[in-house]
Amino acid sequence: MKNVKVIIWGFGAMGSGIAKTLLNRKGIDIVGVGDIGAKVGKSMFEVLGVEKGDNPEVIVGNAEEIIKPGVADIVIVCTDSYTKAVFPKLKFVMEQGINAITSAEQMAYPAAQEPELAAELDKIAKANGVSVLGTGINPGHIMDLLVLVMTGAMTDVEHIVSRRVNSLSPFGPTVMEEQGIGISVEDFNAKKASGKMAGHVGFHESVGMIAEGLGWDIEKFEQDMEPIVTDVDRVAPYGEAKAGTLAGVAMVGQAYKDGECVIEMDHPQQIEPEQVGISTGDYVIIKGTPDINLANSPEVEGGLGTTAMLVNMIPQVINADAGLQTMLSLPVPCCVLGDYRDRIKEDKKIVK
Amino acid sequence: MKNVKVIIWGFGAMGSGIAKTLLNRKGIDIVGVGDIGAKVGKSMFEVLGVEKGDNPEVIVGNAEEIIKPGVADIVIVCTDSYTKAVFPKLKFVMEQGINAITSAEQMAYPAAQEPELAAELDKIAKANGVSVLGTGINPGHIMDLLVLVMTGAMTDVEHIVSRRVNSLSPFGPTVMEEQGIGISVEDFNAKKASGKMAGHVGFHESVGMIAEGLGWDIEKFEQDMEPIVTDVDRVAPYGEAKAGTLAGVAMVGQAYKDGECVIEMDHPQQIEPEQVGISTGDYVIIKGTPDINLANSPEVEGGLGTTAMLVNMIPQVINADAGLQTMLSLPVPCCVLGDYRDRIKEDKKIVK
Repeated sequence: MKNVKVIIWGFGAMGSGIAKTLLNRKGIDIVGVGDIGAKVGKSMFEVLGVEKGDNPEVIVGNAEEIIKPGVADIVIVCTDSYTKAVFPKLKFVMEQGINAITSAEQMAYPAAQEPELAAELDKIAKANGVSVLGTGINPGHIMDLLVLVMTGAMTDVEHIVSRRVNSLSPFGPTVMEEQGIGISVEDFNAKKASGKMAGHVGFHESVGMIAEGLGWDIEKFEQDMEPIVTDVDRVAPYGEAKAGTLAGVAMVGQAYKDGECVIEMDHPQQIEPEQVGISTGDYVIIKGTPDINLANSPEVEGGLGTTAMLVNMIPQVINADAGLQTMLSLPVPCCVLGDYRDRIKEDKKIVK
Repeated sequence: MKNVKVIIWGFGAMGSGIAKTLLNRKGIDIVGVGDIGAKVGKSMFEVLGVEKGDNPEVIVGNAEEIIKPGVADIVIVCTDSYTKAVFPKLKFVMEQGINAITSAEQMAYPAAQEPELAAELDKIAKANGVSVLGTGINPGHIMDLLVLVMTGAMTDVEHIVSRRVNSLSPFGPTVMEEQGIGISVEDFNAKKASGKMAGHVGFHESVGMIAEGLGWDIEKFEQDMEPIVTDVDRVAPYGEAKAGTLAGVAMVGQAYKDGECVIEMDHPQQIEPEQVGISTGDYVIIKGTPDINLANSPEVEGGLGTTAMLVNMIPQVINADAGLQTMLSLPVPCCVLGDYRDRIKEDKKIVK
């Protein structure tokens, strides 16, 4: 079997991280990179700052010109967070008869907020005999899949707390800006009121996935964003928060069934939490039979975790039945340390 | 769609626990119970000690007489721990054209110790258009599946510690006897030397599953069993260990790749661990990128967890492609709180 052939669409922090990871894997080749702006025309290796070695050259180009029928087994799309924004790209990829996987947060469970686009994606995938998945560390793993895996060991579930306490310190200037690091509470309130504070995208999707996994009818989901105001000056590599300003934002959400809150989502994100004695971690606390009290501390770092999920789910997406997939419909993610080809079904291989 | 129809083969502690759980679930009926000895001829409800209510009567009978083509969608076999022992039963079920799921520990990854029987089961399943899965809390979840799910969020894995520290106190007299509770170290050594100490069955299977999931070539696996001698008298509901005698046994195992130990299995099982300050729990400690440091404390109770896994994996087994399945080849386990019928593919339903 020929190596698994991958195209990366979007060569920012996520796309480059994926490329670096794939260069260390076996039985898989990057055959194209699509981006816009200054990177176009440059060698992928030059952009990554890694030695080309024996690898064939890959020149960053225009995605629509690179992605053609039969050139790849899968395209990894890491350009957007929202289903609406990534939809035309996924449509384009699938219409070339190629599988797609994306880091777009809303695509982890697109039926939650874009049911019509989700149905349309499923239709396009089936019409072209390919499959499409959105995944990442969150949504896609820690606050939803891990919760469900633990409920698999339970005979009854009453109440779920899904908590991720993480540090924003490893992230770059864009995230610092998006998360309002160092701004005043007044500025936060103004930005929040005008819809300019994105916060974490994914609660609706995680709750949708948990509800489907358990078979719960959720009648209402509410979420809010609160400022995390620091008492002390905090300094991260790409952001700073003076005492009295925002060190981050805390996302909270509650899902209701039969009038009762059955799922609590809790996701405070801030720079330098350790400086004020906050331990980061991923927590799954479930009341039921039996109770679950799970902690992974420190947390799985976001960028790394999402990179891992995207590269590790490649075989499951290629092998899947045609259609829109979720982490609920596919076999579990595993770190792929052997040859990718050992995991691909012969009849599902596109580049023969 | 008609309710999912289930037959339970083996009505001991596990089979009865499964029946009680299924009686509380929606869209699923127990249509038969197979056992031997004193229970035959009795009402399932009488044996369980629960009210029959509106449920149709189920009389415990001979499994081979009950299991016939078209009478059920799946048979849950909880009679044995070893693949060799359960093989004829699984063969019989599948030859009636019915899917099978079993609690037999070795069946969680039968290729590890019975590769020929595993291949044979795969062949029988395919010939009859059905599927078969072995699962449980361990092997099947805590010491293997959970490890793999966490590696899904990693870009590299170097070393794994899979640890389950549990209490044997909830178990009955059979387990007390099997685990040598209250015997002397001399008796333990004699029983171990003569192969009469079973200890935990499942390390080979868990390691096999982890190795397949990661794509690791494991060249050697070693396991051993050590006595846990108590310093103080310990009393559990069904067993007692005087100071100086066995409160349990500790199973340890090491898997090697390229001459290095890459997987450490660690599973001390004892009565009343809390009495000597030992906290029970499930632990996944992985060195890699990023590191994982996960703890679920206290541990998922074994009997309950295995019951849950068997009843929760029913839809995945019915929906699967024909063949021998593992927890690696099927979608994740979730607690099924909604209607089972909502999860079953129309073309996979046997009892129409």
